[in-house]
Amino acid sequence: MNTTSPTFPGPTPDEAARLTPPQARALFRRGHVSQTSGWSAGWTQANLIALPRDRAYEFLLFAQRNPLPCPVLDVTEPGEVAASIFDGDLRTDLPAYRIYENGRQVAEVTDVVAHWRDDMVCFLLGCSFTFESALLAAGVPVRHIENGTNVPMYRTSRPCRPAGGLAGPLVVTMRPIPAELVATAVGVTARYPAVHGAPVHVGDPAELGIADLDRPDFGDPVEVRTGEVPVFWACGVTPQAAVMRSRPPFAIGHAPGHMAITDARDHDYKLAGL
Amino acid sequence: MNTTSPTFPGPTPDEAARLTPPQARALFRRGHVSQTSGWSAGWTQANLIALPRDRAYEFLLFAQRNPLPCPVLDVTEPGEVAASIFDGDLRTDLPAYRIYENGRQVAEVTDVVAHWRDDMVCFLLGCSFTFESALLAAGVPVRHIENGTNVPMYRTSRPCRPAGGLAGPLVVTMRPIPAELVATAVGVTARYPAVHGAPVHVGDPAELGIADLDRPDFGDPVEVRTGEVPVFWACGVTPQAAVMRSRPPFAIGHAPGHMAITDARDHDYKLAGL
Repeated sequence: MNTTSPTFPGPTPDEAARLTPPQARALFRRGHVSQTSGWSAGWTQANLIALPRDRAYEFLLFAQRNPLPCPVLDVTEPGEVAASIFDGDLRTDLPAYRIYENGRQVAEVTDVVAHWRDDMVCFLLGCSFTFESALLAAGVPVRHIENGTNVPMYRTSRPCRPAGGLAGPLVVTMRPIPAELVATAVGVTARYPAVHGAPVHVGDPAELGIADLDRPDFGDPVEVRTGEVPVFWACGVTPQAAVMRSRPPFAIGHAPGHMAITDARDHDYKLAGL
Repeated sequence: MNTTSPTFPGPTPDEAARLTPPQARALFRRGHVSQTSGWSAGWTQANLIALPRDRAYEFLLFAQRNPLPCPVLDVTEPGEVAASIFDGDLRTDLPAYRIYENGRQVAEVTDVVAHWRDDMVCFLLGCSFTFESALLAAGVPVRHIENGTNVPMYRTSRPCRPAGGLAGPLVVTMRPIPAELVATAVGVTARYPAVHGAPVHVGDPAELGIADLDRPDFGDPVEVRTGEVPVFWACGVTPQAAVMRSRPPFAIGHAPGHMAITDARDHDYKLAGL
Protein backbone atom coordinates (compact mmCIF):
# COMPACT_ATOMS: atom_id res chain seq x y z
CA MET A 1 0.00 0.00 0.00
CA ASN A 2 1.22 3.48 -0.82
CA THR A 3 0.03 5.67 2.03
CA THR A 4 1.93 8.75 0.95
CA SER A 5 -0.62 9.91 -1.63
CA PRO A 6 -4.40 10.31 -1.28
CA THR A 7 -6.47 7.17 -1.84
CA PHE A 8 -9.49 9.19 -2.97
CA PRO A 9 -10.04 12.86 -3.78
CA GLY A 10 -9.85 14.80 -0.54
CA PRO A 11 -10.43 18.38 0.48
CA THR A 12 -8.55 21.23 -1.17
CA PRO A 13 -5.87 22.85 1.03
CA ASP A 14 -8.29 25.64 1.94
CA GLU A 15 -11.02 23.15 2.80
CA ALA A 16 -8.59 21.02 4.82
CA ALA A 17 -7.48 24.07 6.82
CA ARG A 18 -11.09 24.77 7.81
CA LEU A 19 -12.02 21.22 8.85
CA THR A 20 -12.73 20.77 12.54
CA PRO A 21 -10.75 17.98 14.22
CA PRO A 22 -13.84 15.65 14.29
CA GLN A 23 -14.42 16.27 10.56
CA ALA A 24 -10.78 15.57 9.68
CA ARG A 25 -10.70 12.44 11.84
CA ALA A 26 -13.92 11.17 10.21
CA LEU A 27 -12.30 11.46 6.77
CA PHE A 28 -9.26 9.51 7.94
CA ARG A 29 -11.48 6.92 9.60
CA ARG A 30 -13.21 6.38 6.23
CA GLY A 31 -9.80 5.60 4.76
CA HIS A 32 -8.66 8.93 3.33
CA VAL A 33 -4.86 9.12 3.37
CA SER A 34 -3.02 12.43 3.31
CA GLN A 35 -0.21 14.25 5.04
CA THR A 36 -1.75 16.64 7.58
CA SER A 37 0.40 19.75 7.17
CA GLY A 38 -2.01 22.68 7.03
CA TRP A 39 -5.04 20.67 8.09
CA SER A 40 -7.42 22.02 10.78
CA ALA A 41 -5.58 25.30 11.24
CA GLY A 42 -5.17 26.34 14.86
CA TRP A 43 -5.70 22.82 16.18
CA THR A 44 -2.73 20.99 17.63
CA GLN A 45 -1.28 18.04 15.74
CA ALA A 46 0.63 15.34 17.60
CA ASN A 47 3.04 12.48 17.09
CA LEU A 48 1.74 9.06 18.19
CA ILE A 49 3.75 6.26 19.81
CA ALA A 50 1.85 3.25 21.19
CA LEU A 51 3.70 0.69 23.29
CA PRO A 52 2.75 -2.27 25.47
CA ARG A 53 2.26 -1.33 29.14
CA ASP A 54 5.50 -2.97 30.24
CA ARG A 55 7.46 -0.52 28.05
CA ALA A 56 5.50 2.55 29.11
CA TYR A 57 7.49 3.57 32.20
CA GLU A 58 10.82 3.53 30.41
CA PHE A 59 9.39 5.64 27.60
CA LEU A 60 7.75 8.15 29.94
CA LEU A 61 10.99 8.42 31.92
CA PHE A 62 12.98 9.01 28.72
CA ALA A 63 10.55 11.80 27.86
CA GLN A 64 10.83 13.30 31.36
CA ARG A 65 14.63 13.31 31.07
CA ASN A 66 14.56 14.84 27.60
CA PRO A 67 11.66 17.29 27.69
CA LEU A 68 12.80 19.50 24.83
CA PRO A 69 12.67 16.78 22.14
CA CYS A 70 9.99 14.70 23.92
CA PRO A 71 7.11 16.96 24.98
CA VAL A 72 4.39 14.59 26.20
CA LEU A 73 0.97 16.12 25.58
CA ASP A 74 -1.16 13.17 26.66
CA VAL A 75 -0.95 9.52 27.72
CA THR A 76 -3.81 7.00 27.65
CA GLU A 77 -4.61 4.42 30.30
CA PRO A 78 -3.65 0.92 29.04
CA GLY A 79 -6.06 -0.22 26.33
CA GLU A 80 -7.88 3.12 26.00
CA VAL A 81 -8.31 4.31 22.41
CA ALA A 82 -9.26 7.95 23.12
CA ALA A 83 -7.27 10.56 25.01
CA SER A 84 -8.22 13.69 26.91
CA ILE A 85 -7.08 15.80 23.94
CA PHE A 86 -8.24 13.32 21.26
CA ASP A 87 -11.97 12.57 21.35
CA GLY A 88 -11.81 9.91 18.65
CA ASP A 89 -10.33 6.46 18.10
CA LEU A 90 -6.54 6.44 18.03
CA ARG A 91 -6.63 3.11 16.15
CA THR A 92 -8.49 4.47 13.11
CA ASP A 93 -8.55 8.29 13.08
CA LEU A 94 -5.02 9.02 11.91
CA PRO A 95 -4.38 8.91 8.15
CA ALA A 96 -1.61 6.30 8.31
CA TYR A 97 0.33 4.20 10.80
CA ARG A 98 3.51 2.17 10.89
CA ILE A 99 3.73 -1.16 12.70
CA TYR A 100 7.06 -2.10 14.24
CA GLU A 101 8.24 -5.50 15.49
CA ASN A 102 11.56 -5.69 17.33
CA GLY A 103 12.29 -2.15 16.15
CA ARG A 104 11.78 -2.96 12.46
CA GLN A 105 8.91 -1.56 10.39
CA VAL A 106 6.78 -4.47 9.17
CA ALA A 107 3.74 -2.66 7.75
CA GLU A 108 2.22 0.71 6.88
CA VAL A 109 -1.57 0.69 7.28
CA THR A 110 -4.54 3.07 7.50
CA ASP A 111 -5.92 1.59 10.70
CA VAL A 112 -4.47 -0.58 13.44
CA VAL A 113 -7.59 -2.29 14.80
CA ALA A 114 -6.31 -5.71 13.73
CA HIS A 115 -2.95 -5.05 15.39
CA TRP A 116 -4.30 -3.62 18.65
CA ARG A 117 -3.48 -5.22 21.99
CA ASP A 118 -5.41 -4.65 25.18
CA ASP A 119 -2.43 -3.34 27.11
CA MET A 120 -1.30 -0.68 24.61
CA VAL A 121 -0.47 2.75 26.03
CA CYS A 122 -0.62 5.67 23.57
CA PHE A 123 1.70 8.65 23.91
CA LEU A 124 0.81 11.86 22.08
CA LEU A 125 3.87 14.07 21.67
CA GLY A 126 4.08 17.71 20.65
CA CYS A 127 5.07 18.82 17.19
CA SER A 128 6.73 22.06 16.11
CA PHE A 129 3.87 22.72 13.67
CA THR A 130 2.31 24.27 16.77
CA PHE A 131 4.64 27.25 16.94
CA GLU A 132 5.11 27.76 13.21
CA SER A 133 1.91 29.74 12.86
CA ALA A 134 3.05 31.93 15.77
CA LEU A 135 6.36 32.49 13.95
CA LEU A 136 4.54 33.51 10.78
CA ALA A 137 2.21 35.78 12.77
CA ALA A 138 5.28 37.49 14.25
CA GLY A 139 6.66 38.13 10.76
CA VAL A 140 9.29 35.39 10.87
CA PRO A 141 9.42 33.56 7.52
CA VAL A 142 9.39 29.75 7.55
CA ARG A 143 11.22 28.55 4.44
CA HIS A 144 9.89 24.98 4.21
CA ILE A 145 6.32 26.28 4.39
CA GLU A 146 7.11 28.77 1.61
CA ASN A 147 8.56 25.87 -0.40
CA GLY A 148 5.71 23.47 0.37
CA THR A 149 8.26 20.87 1.54
CA ASN A 150 8.90 18.92 4.75
CA VAL A 151 11.09 20.54 7.43
CA PRO A 152 14.76 19.39 7.32
CA MET A 153 15.73 17.18 10.28
CA TYR A 154 19.21 16.12 11.40
CA ARG A 155 20.66 13.61 13.83
CA THR A 156 23.11 15.46 16.08
CA SER A 157 26.19 14.35 18.01
CA ARG A 158 24.43 15.25 21.29
CA PRO A 159 23.23 12.18 23.16
CA CYS A 160 19.92 12.26 24.98
CA ARG A 161 19.91 11.28 28.66
CA PRO A 162 19.20 7.54 28.57
CA ALA A 163 16.41 5.90 30.57
CA GLY A 164 16.88 2.19 31.20
CA GLY A 165 17.43 0.71 27.73
CA LEU A 166 16.25 3.81 25.85
CA ALA A 167 19.01 5.93 24.33
CA GLY A 168 19.75 7.86 21.18
CA PRO A 169 20.93 11.17 19.73
CA LEU A 170 19.04 14.42 19.86
CA VAL A 171 17.34 15.04 16.51
CA VAL A 172 16.75 18.66 15.49
CA THR A 173 14.79 20.61 12.90
CA MET A 174 16.42 23.57 11.14
CA ARG A 175 14.86 26.82 9.96
CA PRO A 176 16.96 29.54 8.30
CA ILE A 177 16.09 32.84 10.03
CA PRO A 178 17.14 36.36 8.94
CA ALA A 179 19.76 37.52 11.46
CA GLU A 180 17.66 40.49 12.57
CA LEU A 181 14.71 38.18 13.37
CA VAL A 182 16.58 35.52 15.39
CA ALA A 183 15.73 37.23 18.69
CA THR A 184 12.05 37.35 17.69
CA ALA A 185 12.09 33.67 16.71
CA VAL A 186 13.67 32.74 20.04
CA GLY A 187 11.13 34.76 22.03
CA VAL A 188 8.12 33.45 20.12
CA THR A 189 9.07 29.78 20.41
CA ALA A 190 10.22 30.08 24.04
CA ARG A 191 6.57 30.71 24.89
CA TYR A 192 5.74 27.17 23.69
CA PRO A 193 7.86 24.98 26.00
CA ALA A 194 5.35 22.10 25.63
CA VAL A 195 6.09 21.85 21.91
CA HIS A 196 9.91 22.02 21.83
CA GLY A 197 10.23 25.63 23.04
CA ALA A 198 13.23 27.86 22.33
CA PRO A 199 16.00 26.78 19.95
CA VAL A 200 18.67 24.41 21.26
CA HIS A 201 21.32 25.97 19.01
CA VAL A 202 21.77 29.04 16.82
CA GLY A 203 24.47 29.10 14.14
CA ASP A 204 27.28 26.72 13.24
CA PRO A 205 25.83 23.26 12.44
CA ALA A 206 29.26 21.67 12.95
CA GLU A 207 28.92 22.21 16.70
CA LEU A 208 25.96 19.83 16.61
CA GLY A 209 27.91 17.34 14.53
CA ILE A 210 25.94 18.16 11.38
CA ALA A 211 28.32 17.85 8.44
CA ASP A 212 26.14 19.12 5.61
CA LEU A 213 22.91 21.11 5.93
CA ASP A 214 22.04 20.17 2.35
CA ARG A 215 21.73 16.52 3.34
CA PRO A 216 19.17 16.22 6.14
CA ASP A 217 18.61 12.81 7.74
CA PHE A 218 14.84 13.24 7.37
CA GLY A 219 12.68 15.68 5.41
CA ASP A 220 13.81 18.01 2.64
CA PRO A 221 16.75 20.45 2.43
CA VAL A 222 16.13 24.22 2.35
CA GLU A 223 18.38 27.06 1.20
CA VAL A 224 20.14 29.20 3.85
CA ARG A 225 20.48 32.59 2.16
CA THR A 226 22.97 35.39 2.74
CA GLY A 227 22.02 37.25 5.92
CA GLU A 228 20.25 34.21 7.37
CA VAL A 229 21.33 32.07 10.32
CA PRO A 230 20.49 28.37 10.66
CA VAL A 231 18.44 27.95 13.85
CA PHE A 232 17.89 24.52 15.39
CA TRP A 233 15.00 23.26 17.50
CA ALA A 234 14.62 19.90 19.27
CA CYS A 235 12.52 17.51 17.17
CA GLY A 236 9.82 14.96 17.97
CA VAL A 237 11.56 12.36 15.80
CA THR A 238 14.05 11.98 18.70
CA PRO A 239 11.87 9.71 20.89
CA GLN A 240 10.72 7.55 17.98
CA ALA A 241 14.32 6.96 16.94
CA ALA A 242 15.26 6.00 20.51
CA VAL A 243 12.28 3.64 20.88
CA MET A 244 13.08 1.83 17.64
CA ARG A 245 16.74 1.47 18.64
CA SER A 246 15.64 -0.28 21.83
CA ARG A 247 13.83 -2.89 19.67
CA PRO A 248 10.58 -3.27 21.58
CA PRO A 249 8.77 -6.49 20.61
CA PHE A 250 5.86 -4.41 19.33
CA ALA A 251 5.14 -0.72 18.71
CA ILE A 252 2.85 1.44 16.62
CA GLY A 253 3.63 4.93 15.35
CA HIS A 254 1.99 7.40 13.00
CA ALA A 255 3.47 7.50 9.50
CA PRO A 256 5.76 10.58 9.30
CA GLY A 257 3.76 13.70 8.44
CA HIS A 258 0.47 11.83 8.97
CA MET A 259 -0.26 13.23 12.40
CA ALA A 260 -2.99 12.90 15.03
CA ILE A 261 -5.26 15.97 14.79
CA THR A 262 -6.24 16.70 18.38
CA ASP A 263 -8.99 18.70 20.09
CA ALA A 264 -6.41 20.94 21.75
CA ARG A 265 -5.75 24.39 20.31
CA ASP A 266 -2.25 25.60 19.50
CA HIS A 267 -2.94 28.43 21.93
CA ASP A 268 -3.37 25.90 24.77
CA TYR A 269 0.37 25.25 24.62
CA LYS A 270 1.37 28.88 24.80
CA LEU A 271 2.74 29.59 28.24
CA ALA A 272 0.28 31.44 30.47
CA GLY A 273 1.36 34.75 31.93
CA LEU A 274 3.83 35.85 29.26
CA MET B 1 12.81 11.87 67.92
CA ASN B 2 12.01 15.51 67.38
CA THR B 3 13.37 16.35 63.94
CA THR B 4 11.90 19.84 63.81
CA SER B 5 14.62 21.50 65.87
CA PRO B 6 18.39 21.30 65.47
CA THR B 7 20.08 18.34 67.15
CA PHE B 8 23.34 20.25 67.56
CA PRO B 9 24.32 23.88 66.99
CA GLY B 10 24.28 24.55 63.28
CA PRO B 11 25.25 27.44 61.07
CA THR B 12 23.74 30.90 61.52
CA PRO B 13 21.22 31.91 58.83
CA ASP B 14 23.93 33.89 57.02
CA GLU B 15 26.33 30.95 57.18
CA ALA B 16 23.62 28.54 56.00
CA ALA B 17 22.84 30.77 53.02
CA ARG B 18 26.48 30.65 51.94
CA LEU B 19 26.97 26.88 52.24
CA THR B 20 27.53 25.06 48.98
CA PRO B 21 25.21 22.10 48.37
CA PRO B 22 27.99 19.57 49.21
CA GLN B 23 28.72 21.40 52.47
CA ALA B 24 25.05 21.50 53.46
CA ARG B 25 24.56 17.83 52.58
CA ALA B 26 27.63 16.87 54.62
CA LEU B 27 26.14 18.57 57.69
CA PHE B 28 22.86 16.70 57.25
CA ARG B 29 24.72 13.44 56.64
CA ARG B 30 26.46 13.94 60.02
CA GLY B 31 23.03 14.16 61.61
CA HIS B 32 22.30 17.89 61.72
CA VAL B 33 18.56 18.49 61.55
CA SER B 34 17.12 21.80 60.37
CA GLN B 35 14.53 23.18 58.04
CA THR B 36 16.26 24.32 54.86
CA SER B 37 14.50 27.59 54.09
CA GLY B 38 17.24 30.07 53.19
CA TRP B 39 19.99 27.46 53.01
CA SER B 40 22.45 27.47 50.06
CA ALA B 41 20.99 30.57 48.43
CA GLY B 42 20.63 30.28 44.67
CA TRP B 43 20.71 26.47 44.70
CA THR B 44 17.51 24.62 43.95
CA GLN B 45 15.76 22.74 46.74
CA ALA B 46 13.52 19.80 45.93
CA ASN B 47 10.79 17.61 47.38
CA LEU B 48 11.65 13.89 47.60
CA ILE B 49 9.30 10.97 47.05
CA ALA B 50 10.79 7.47 46.88
CA LEU B 51 8.60 4.56 45.79
CA PRO B 52 9.15 0.93 44.82
CA ARG B 53 9.67 0.43 41.07
CA ASP B 54 6.21 -1.10 40.57
CA ARG B 55 4.61 2.18 41.71
CA ALA B 56 6.89 4.42 39.64
CA TYR B 57 4.97 4.48 36.35
CA GLU B 58 1.71 5.49 37.97
CA PHE B 59 3.44 8.28 39.86
CA LEU B 60 5.31 9.57 36.83
CA LEU B 61 2.08 9.51 34.80
CA PHE B 62 0.25 11.43 37.55
CA ALA B 63 3.02 14.03 37.40
CA GLN B 64 2.83 14.20 33.59
CA ARG B 65 -0.91 14.77 33.78
CA ASN B 66 -0.59 17.43 36.48
CA PRO B 67 2.58 19.30 35.58
CA LEU B 68 1.77 22.52 37.46
CA PRO B 69 1.63 20.93 40.94
CA CYS B 70 4.01 18.06 40.06
CA PRO B 71 7.10 19.44 38.32
CA VAL B 72 9.49 16.47 38.08
CA LEU B 73 13.08 17.70 38.20
CA ASP B 74 14.82 14.33 38.28
CA VAL B 75 14.17 10.59 38.60
CA THR B 76 16.71 7.96 39.61
CA GLU B 77 17.13 4.51 38.09
CA PRO B 78 15.78 1.84 40.49
CA GLY B 79 18.12 1.48 43.47
CA GLU B 80 20.32 4.46 42.62
CA VAL B 81 20.98 6.79 45.57
CA ALA B 82 22.33 9.79 43.62
CA ALA B 83 20.62 11.78 40.88
CA SER B 84 21.89 13.87 38.02
CA ILE B 85 21.09 17.04 40.02
CA PHE B 86 22.01 15.56 43.42
CA ASP B 87 25.62 14.40 43.69
CA GLY B 88 25.21 12.92 47.15
CA ASP B 89 23.34 10.11 48.88
CA LEU B 90 19.57 10.56 48.86
CA ARG B 91 19.30 8.14 51.81
CA THR B 92 21.40 10.26 54.20
CA ASP B 93 21.90 13.80 52.85
CA LEU B 94 18.50 15.32 53.63
CA PRO B 95 17.94 16.65 57.16
CA ALA B 96 14.88 14.50 57.88
CA TYR B 97 12.66 11.88 56.26
CA ARG B 98 9.27 10.35 56.82
CA ILE B 99 8.58 6.64 56.34
CA TYR B 100 5.12 5.60 55.17
CA GLU B 101 3.52 2.16 55.21
CA ASN B 102 0.18 1.72 53.48
CA GLY B 103 -0.11 5.51 53.28
CA ARG B 104 0.41 6.02 57.02
CA GLN B 105 3.46 7.71 58.52
CA VAL B 106 5.26 5.21 60.75
CA ALA B 107 8.53 7.03 61.47
CA GLU B 108 10.45 10.27 61.12
CA VAL B 109 14.20 9.68 60.83
CA THR B 110 17.42 11.44 59.83
CA ASP B 111 18.56 8.76 57.42
CA VAL B 112 16.79 5.94 55.61
CA VAL B 113 19.66 3.51 55.02
CA ALA B 114 18.01 0.88 57.22
CA HIS B 115 14.72 1.29 55.36
CA TRP B 116 16.14 1.27 51.84
CA ARG B 117 15.05 -1.28 49.27
CA ASP B 118 16.97 -2.14 46.13
CA ASP B 119 14.12 -1.26 43.79
CA MET B 120 13.38 2.22 45.15
CA VAL B 121 12.92 5.00 42.58
CA CYS B 122 13.48 8.55 43.83
CA PHE B 123 11.52 11.46 42.40
CA LEU B 124 12.82 14.99 42.97
CA LEU B 125 10.06 17.56 42.52
CA GLY B 126 10.31 21.31 42.14
CA CYS B 127 9.54 23.69 44.98
CA SER B 128 8.31 27.27 44.80
CA PHE B 129 11.29 28.41 46.91
CA THR B 130 12.94 28.54 43.50
CA PHE B 131 10.98 31.53 42.23
CA GLU B 132 10.68 33.38 45.54
CA SER B 133 14.11 34.95 45.22
CA ALA B 134 13.14 36.08 41.70
CA LEU B 135 9.97 37.65 43.14
CA LEU B 136 11.99 39.50 45.78
CA ALA B 137 14.52 40.62 43.16
CA ALA B 138 11.63 42.06 41.11
CA GLY B 139 10.43 44.05 44.12
CA VAL B 140 7.49 41.77 44.94
CA PRO B 141 7.24 41.28 48.72
CA VAL B 142 6.81 37.74 50.05
CA ARG B 143 4.92 37.93 53.34
CA HIS B 144 5.83 34.54 54.85
CA ILE B 145 9.52 35.25 54.27
CA GLU B 146 9.12 38.65 55.98
CA ASN B 147 7.38 36.84 58.86
CA GLY B 148 9.91 33.99 59.04
CA THR B 149 7.04 31.47 58.83
CA ASN B 150 6.09 28.62 56.51
CA VAL B 151 4.04 29.42 53.39
CA PRO B 152 0.26 28.83 53.84
CA MET B 153 -1.04 25.86 51.83
CA TYR B 154 -4.65 24.90 51.08
CA ARG B 155 -6.45 21.88 49.68
CA THR B 156 -8.73 23.10 46.87
CA SER B 157 -11.97 21.75 45.40
CA ARG B 158 -10.20 21.21 42.05
CA PRO B 159 -9.40 17.56 41.41
CA CYS B 160 -6.14 16.60 39.74
CA ARG B 161 -6.36 14.39 36.66
CA PRO B 162 -6.09 10.86 38.08
CA ALA B 163 -3.57 8.28 36.85
CA GLY B 164 -4.50 4.69 37.58
CA GLY B 165 -5.13 4.62 41.34
CA LEU B 166 -3.54 8.01 42.01
CA ALA B 167 -5.98 10.85 42.61
CA GLY B 168 -6.42 13.85 44.85
CA PRO B 169 -7.15 17.57 45.02
CA LEU B 170 -4.91 20.32 43.77
CA VAL B 171 -3.06 21.87 46.72
CA VAL B 172 -2.01 25.52 46.41
CA THR B 173 0.24 28.01 48.17
CA MET B 174 -0.99 31.56 48.73
CA ARG B 175 0.98 34.79 48.73
CA PRO B 176 -0.74 38.18 49.27
CA ILE B 177 0.46 40.52 46.51
CA PRO B 178 -0.13 44.30 46.26
CA ALA B 179 -2.66 44.78 43.42
CA GLU B 180 -0.25 46.89 41.38
CA LEU B 181 2.38 44.11 41.51
CA VAL B 182 0.16 41.16 40.52
CA ALA B 183 1.13 41.48 36.84
CA THR B 184 4.82 41.51 37.81
CA ALA B 185 4.37 38.45 40.04
CA VAL B 186 2.60 36.59 37.21
CA GLY B 187 5.30 37.46 34.68
CA VAL B 188 8.20 36.57 36.99
CA THR B 189 6.82 33.18 38.02
CA ALA B 190 5.60 32.29 34.49
CA ARG B 191 9.27 32.15 33.52
CA TYR B 192 9.71 29.20 35.92
CA PRO B 193 7.29 26.58 34.52
CA ALA B 194 9.45 23.75 35.91
CA VAL B 195 8.79 24.93 39.47
CA HIS B 196 5.02 25.58 39.41
CA GLY B 197 5.11 28.54 36.98
CA ALA B 198 2.40 31.20 36.81
CA PRO B 199 -0.42 31.39 39.37
CA VAL B 200 -3.38 29.03 38.95
CA HIS B 201 -5.77 31.60 40.45
CA VAL B 202 -5.80 35.28 41.39
CA GLY B 203 -8.40 36.60 43.82
CA ASP B 204 -11.45 35.04 45.46
CA PRO B 205 -10.40 31.95 47.47
CA ALA B 206 -14.02 30.70 47.48
CA GLU B 207 -13.70 29.84 43.78
CA LEU B 208 -11.03 27.31 44.77
CA GLY B 209 -13.24 25.96 47.55
CA ILE B 210 -11.09 27.59 50.24
CA ALA B 211 -13.43 28.65 53.07
CA ASP B 212 -11.03 30.57 55.31
CA LEU B 213 -7.59 31.91 54.37
CA ASP B 214 -6.75 32.19 58.07
CA ARG B 215 -6.90 28.42 58.44
CA PRO B 216 -4.47 26.84 55.96
CA ASP B 217 -4.36 23.04 55.69
CA PHE B 218 -0.55 23.12 55.95
CA GLY B 219 1.93 25.83 56.96
CA ASP B 220 1.17 29.10 58.71
CA PRO B 221 -1.46 31.79 58.00
CA VAL B 222 -0.41 35.23 56.74
CA GLU B 223 -2.27 38.55 56.76
CA VAL B 224 -3.83 39.81 53.50
CA ARG B 225 -3.71 43.61 53.86
CA THR B 226 -5.88 46.29 52.28
CA GLY B 227 -4.79 46.75 48.66
CA GLU B 228 -3.44 43.23 48.43
CA VAL B 229 -4.83 40.33 46.40
CA PRO B 230 -4.45 36.68 47.41
CA VAL B 231 -2.54 34.91 44.61
CA PHE B 232 -2.45 31.11 44.41
CA TRP B 233 0.22 28.86 42.93
CA ALA B 234 0.14 25.08 42.47
CA CYS B 235 1.99 23.36 45.32
CA GLY B 236 4.37 20.39 45.53
CA VAL B 237 2.37 18.96 48.43
CA THR B 238 -0.20 17.87 45.82
CA PRO B 239 1.63 14.74 44.64
CA GLN B 240 2.57 13.64 48.15
CA ALA B 241 -1.05 13.88 49.25
CA ALA B 242 -2.17 11.83 46.25
CA VAL B 243 0.49 9.17 46.81
CA MET B 244 -0.43 8.75 50.46
CA ARG B 245 -4.14 8.48 49.59
CA SER B 246 -3.33 5.60 47.25
CA ARG B 247 -1.81 3.76 50.23
CA PRO B 248 1.34 2.32 48.65
CA PRO B 249 2.78 -0.52 50.77
CA PHE B 250 5.95 1.52 51.26
CA ALA B 251 7.11 5.06 50.53
CA ILE B 252 9.70 7.54 51.76
CA GLY B 253 9.36 11.33 51.68
CA HIS B 254 11.33 14.25 53.03
CA ALA B 255 9.97 15.78 56.22
CA PRO B 256 8.07 18.97 55.27
CA GLY B 257 10.43 21.93 54.97
CA HIS B 258 13.45 19.62 55.23
CA MET B 259 14.27 19.61 51.54
CA ALA B 260 16.87 18.03 49.27
CA ILE B 261 19.49 20.69 48.44
CA THR B 262 20.48 19.96 44.85
CA ASP B 263 23.40 20.88 42.61
CA ALA B 264 21.06 22.68 40.19
CA ARG B 265 20.86 26.44 40.29
CA ASP B 266 17.54 28.26 40.54
CA HIS B 267 18.50 29.94 37.29
CA ASP B 268 18.56 26.52 35.53
CA TYR B 269 14.78 26.43 35.85
CA LYS B 270 14.22 29.85 34.36
CA LEU B 271 12.86 29.44 30.87
CA ALA B 272 15.48 30.07 28.20
CA GLY B 273 14.78 32.76 25.65
CA LEU B 274 12.50 35.02 27.71
